[in-house]
Amino acid sequence: MTLDVGVIGTGMIGQDHIRRLTSVLSGARVAAVTDVDLDRARAVADGVPGSVVHDTGQALIDDPGVDAVVVTSWGPTHEEYVLAAISAGKQVFCEKPLATTREACDRIVDAEVATGKRLVQVGFMRRFDPQYRAMKAVVTSGEIGAPLLMHAAHRNPSVPDFFTSDMTINDSTVHDIDVARWMFDDEIAAVTVLKGRISRKAKAGFNDPLLVLLEMRSGVIVDVEAMVNAGFGYDIRGEVVCEDGTVELSESAGAVVKLAGRYSGRVPETWKERFVGAFDLELQAWVDAVSAGGSTGPSAWDGYAATVACETGLAALRSGLREEVVLRERPDLYAKEGVA
Amino acid sequence: MTLDVGVIGTGMIGQDHIRRLTSVLSGARVAAVTDVDLDRARAVADGVPGSVVHDTGQALIDDPGVDAVVVTSWGPTHEEYVLAAISAGKQVFCEKPLATTREACDRIVDAEVATGKRLVQVGFMRRFDPQYRAMKAVVTSGEIGAPLLMHAAHRNPSVPDFFTSDMTINDSTVHDIDVARWMFDDEIAAVTVLKGRISRKAKAGFNDPLLVLLEMRSGVIVDVEAMVNAGFGYDIRGEVVCEDGTVELSESAGAVVKLAGRYSGRVPETWKERFVGAFDLELQAWVDAVSAGGSTGPSAWDGYAATVACETGLAALRSGLREEVVLRERPDLYAKEGVA
Amino acid sequence: MTLDVGVIGTGMIGQDHIRRLTSVLSGARVAAVTDVDLDRARAVADGVPGSVVHDTGQALIDDPGVDAVVVTSWGPTHEEYVLAAISAGKQVFCEKPLATTREACDRIVDAEVATGKRLVQVGFMRRFDPQYRAMKAVVTSGEIGAPLLMHAAHRNPSVPDFFTSDMTINDSTVHDIDVARWMFDDEIAAVTVLKGRISRKAKAGFNDPLLVLLEMRSGVIVDVEAMVNAGFGYDIRGEVVCEDGTVELSESAGAVVKLAGRYSGRVPETWKERFVGAFDLELQAWVDAVSAGGSTGPSAWDGYAATVACETGLAALRSGLREEVVLRERPDLYAKEGVA
Amino acid sequence: MTLDVGVIGTGMIGQDHIRRLTSVLSGARVAAVTDVDLDRARAVADGVPGSVVHDTGQALIDDPGVDAVVVTSWGPTHEEYVLAAISAGKQVFCEKPLATTREACDRIVDAEVATGKRLVQVGFMRRFDPQYRAMKAVVTSGEIGAPLLMHAAHRNPSVPDFFTSDMTINDSTVHDIDVARWMFDDEIAAVTVLKGRISRKAKAGFNDPLLVLLEMRSGVIVDVEAMVNAGFGYDIRGEVVCEDGTVELSESAGAVVKLAGRYSGRVPETWKERFVGAFDLELQAWVDAVSAGGSTGPSAWDGYAATVACETGLAALRSGLREEVVLRERPDLYAKEGVA
Repeated sequence: MTLDVGVIGTGMIGQDHIRRLTSVLSGARVAAVTDVDLDRARAVADGVPGSVVHDTGQALIDDPGVDAVVVTSWGPTHEEYVLAAISAGKQVFCEKPLATTREACDRIVDAEVATGKRLVQVGFMRRFDPQYRAMKAVVTSGEIGAPLLMHAAHRNPSVPDFFTSDMTINDSTVHDIDVARWMFDDEIAAVTVLKGRISRKAKAGFNDPLLVLLEMRSGVIVDVEAMVNAGFGYDIRGEVVCEDGTVELSESAGAVVKLAGRYSGRVPETWKERFVGAFDLELQAWVDAVSAGGSTGPSAWDGYAATVACETGLAALRSGLREEVVLRERPDLYAKEGVA
Repeated sequence: MTLDVGVIGTGMIGQDHIRRLTSVLSGARVAAVTDVDLDRARAVADGVPGSVVHDTGQALIDDPGVDAVVVTSWGPTHEEYVLAAISAGKQVFCEKPLATTREACDRIVDAEVATGKRLVQVGFMRRFDPQYRAMKAVVTSGEIGAPLLMHAAHRNPSVPDFFTSDMTINDSTVHDIDVARWMFDDEIAAVTVLKGRISRKAKAGFNDPLLVLLEMRSGVIVDVEAMVNAGFGYDIRGEVVCEDGTVELSESAGAVVKLAGRYSGRVPETWKERFVGAFDLELQAWVDAVSAGGSTGPSAWDGYAATVACETGLAALRSGLREEVVLRERPDLYAKEGVA
Repeated sequence: MTLDVGVIGTGMIGQDHIRRLTSVLSGARVAAVTDVDLDRARAVADGVPGSVVHDTGQALIDDPGVDAVVVTSWGPTHEEYVLAAISAGKQVFCEKPLATTREACDRIVDAEVATGKRLVQVGFMRRFDPQYRAMKAVVTSGEIGAPLLMHAAHRNPSVPDFFTSDMTINDSTVHDIDVARWMFDDEIAAVTVLKGRISRKAKAGFNDPLLVLLEMRSGVIVDVEAMVNAGFGYDIRGEVVCEDGTVELSESAGAVVKLAGRYSGRVPETWKERFVGAFDLELQAWVDAVSAGGSTGPSAWDGYAATVACETGLAALRSGLREEVVLRERPDLYAKEGVA
Repeated sequence: MTLDVGVIGTGMIGQDHIRRLTSVLSGARVAAVTDVDLDRARAVADGVPGSVVHDTGQALIDDPGVDAVVVTSWGPTHEEYVLAAISAGKQVFCEKPLATTREACDRIVDAEVATGKRLVQVGFMRRFDPQYRAMKAVVTSGEIGAPLLMHAAHRNPSVPDFFTSDMTINDSTVHDIDVARWMFDDEIAAVTVLKGRISRKAKAGFNDPLLVLLEMRSGVIVDVEAMVNAGFGYDIRGEVVCEDGTVELSESAGAVVKLAGRYSGRVPETWKERFVGAFDLELQAWVDAVSAGGSTGPSAWDGYAATVACETGLAALRSGLREEVVLRERPDLYAKEGVA
């Protein structure tokens, strides 16, 4: 009854998911790992009793001892591994992005649709965060009327030197893009990116922060502050404004200290701290769904739509204009959302 | 030592200021009133011992028993009364707007500059609100770095039937326009107005809410949600995002109740409730300054710049485009801000 | 129409009330001052145009130019001045305590009752604090059921060297005693004082903090943490626990700052900061009531009952036991509370 | 590598722990169950593949397929099963109370000490709650000085008809008793119980709420409001007052809604909702520790001390007096606390 999982990619997030599957979640274990850096893969496997190391992702996927696959490798390699898992008929959990181009996502969607069943879940963990779920429950309930606007902020404390404005869209804002689609059960119609005053902390040529405007097909506007040099912490904000009221994410709970003229509480330090519970719930949901024979949660379609919106966002970042999001027709396979 | 004030306009806000000058503030009394509806003026004067009624604003201004003038009449009449007060050499407190057109404001600025001293204070009361002042103190202190963005929301519970999208700009957003200029000691360079999904509560042809984007000359972007059919209360939000941290207005203090599965606190019901303290402090500051021989606080220049920004906002509302704000040179008279 | 007020006692609180009467409130001015230190009285009067200095409190009270009296002198002198004012038939606002002994308060009550009308208001300013009033409104409304318990904390940042445990009862807890009586429209039946672990900041022989238990006649228990070396700020907490819910004072509103891993807000630094609005409302209410011919607010009875409860608290501090509060019959003059 | 757990007692909490071990936690499965109601045990086992049903607790403990035991049966039976597990040399997790009398706890402590190693963990789950742990981390850090007082409230929405004042001590306050001992790494020296005004919701003869005062050996006083008919929700409050500051549990995080003149957030409905995360962390910690060969967390000594404090509390409830807590010497086996 235990799901034997193979993990492709043993970097930071891969190691975190391996820890989760091994020591936190119920019903799964890590049976195999691989990585482009095999030494790292072997070092990681040494800490996971019963796991083997494969030379390639394909070999791992082909291993009959692997029931299902987790892809946490470098983004540009996602397409290959996800397609291989689909081809092998194995369920696959792929960290975002599903793939780095619209065309690659297209190929994944086509391949999955051809099998006639869902095999792919994409790692948009915010859908599993208790606060976001509580917010969506309020919006969906109708108790505060129809949604009109959403205000969001995505603040990272700092980023590595190689980070660029493009990555602000592709790596940070992509989560807000998915939240917007999920929150309103709607597609994004257009994206505008505003570049304002630049933080002294941004290296040359880097526009930080950005103000990203998402227009949903319903007309709902979502404004997203995306700032990756915020310094003070990892701060995720959100407020949905509806016809009769609003709903917003609260500050994180915890101990409130009074000292030296201030009352104060903690702002999470990293995304790991902020979303640790969401990652646990996300991967447990995947393990449970796969063990039950299916796949739920964010789909390949969600991965496709997010990548297309990011591409549109990059175009908007370059043009300074409002750019329209052009999506293919949604296949029937994706008619139902996986997460209420 | 008591300032004898004449009040032109005895509608809701005029009556509120009369109550304030008579029963709340120190150092002033209402010596004379007038209104386009003289019956209303007489009824109001009946409740203010020692006050007289004048047939016209000009007569009131000319009354040697009137030391200083408060203008709370209908917006289109402001120019006439403010110019008359300047001409009479009397200090004048004018509710916003200073005047309804750029040209009218120009004439007031010219007239005041010609006298060589400040005679006009405009009723932007938020500059006196303790929360906004605490926010500005943090921004100005530099402790959280240079400002980059500001998020604001201006939510009215409801509006009368005659309200229009134009009035959302001119009557509501004008306060956020002034706050932006004051908070950053900077002028607005451009305005964009986004129309999204329309609340079911907005009557036909009315775009509610609006998302107004103000670009400061420094590059700071201010996004303002302006919604006048919010229903749940009068809710004013603001957060300034700086390089090292943020500062935001807290929820209003008060009693927190736990009942029936919720903890809850009050959202102000009206602008009177939310800003009652700010109005008191604003008018007391004016009384004190005038009694001391000068005038401080928001100036005719501030009134001019706000009106021009509103006109630009209306153009942006119509064009759907980013519209640039074009200001005359700022006269030296207005080199110093009146409120730190 | 302006009330001419004489102020006896020009120390810190006296000067603050003089500033308030002169520059903040409506309808009053300071006509005369005196102080045990006449040089100080003269220095203060110099800053108040139109005020005169009297050699003694009696002379000030006798001054026909003085309509009403404010007593802000040293506590042990209150009885003399309040009795003199009653004798002169003048309204008197007396800072707490009304008098320092039960017997002295008795004499004041007797004297006032003999006049057949209320002439005395005692300075329990919390009854005018908007937060406390909101709390009482909830309790009185019945919406959360009948009150059962109250938790309170009274934290001073620090105290002068001459401060003692007795003063923790008489000068700090006296406010919580009055709040309890006012909140529940009830008298205190018994007091217990617990001495626990002593702060390193308390000087030798000083028990700080204390935990004071007040039992109301209804059975409602009020626990009061009284700590006068709290260090971090002036922090006043309160929560009333009722059958169906609770109501508590919120943290002070203001700007919330995010910086260096924390979100934080200000704790008031001093009682002046925390209760500045309450003092303004309190004294304005007195000026208005006196100008209207009467006196409302906390009465001589409230002053009497508070002093008796403090005396009982001191006995409890010494005995370590539960001590019962013994009150005289309440004269009919005080049948109605002054503040709803 | 999977721990085979036997569960004695398949009532509400037993079923919840079975769900946890089966579907939530890592590294354990339920191998056997039993219950005084064997039909219920069989029904529960039907939902847990691979589990067997035993006729008695002793048979379950003797089963070589059971590695470790969870005791969630009726309190009076705890002693028997815990002693049997110790006798069998098996690790045992026992829900509170460890046993219902001081003498029974004595026997368990003696038995465990005789084995020379820890075999027992008691179910005081608050020690694993992230908020309580954050609070203790602040207290222990010394950053706010030495602790002086603690204020706590334990509010249950309602209780069954058979609930009594004794159960308020034994079933509710026992958690606050354990928190006090753990928070301050100290024993309770004395207990006083105050009975005040009784809620209309309490049935005849039931004193609800109670105000329980715990005096630690250090002199720290802990006041606990224990109310089991609070109605509005399950509300757990706590604030530790130290020499330089305070630390308190925040309100639960979640979505904050603005609607109809209020902003509001959720109060947990039940202890399950409030402490779901704590229960998960608690039992995972036990599984991990047992799998690693030992036992950590709240010990038999903690169970003994809590039961003695509860007995003292009951004496205090009856006498109305301050009652001293008399503990045996703490065996060396319990020299180290299990949870930092």
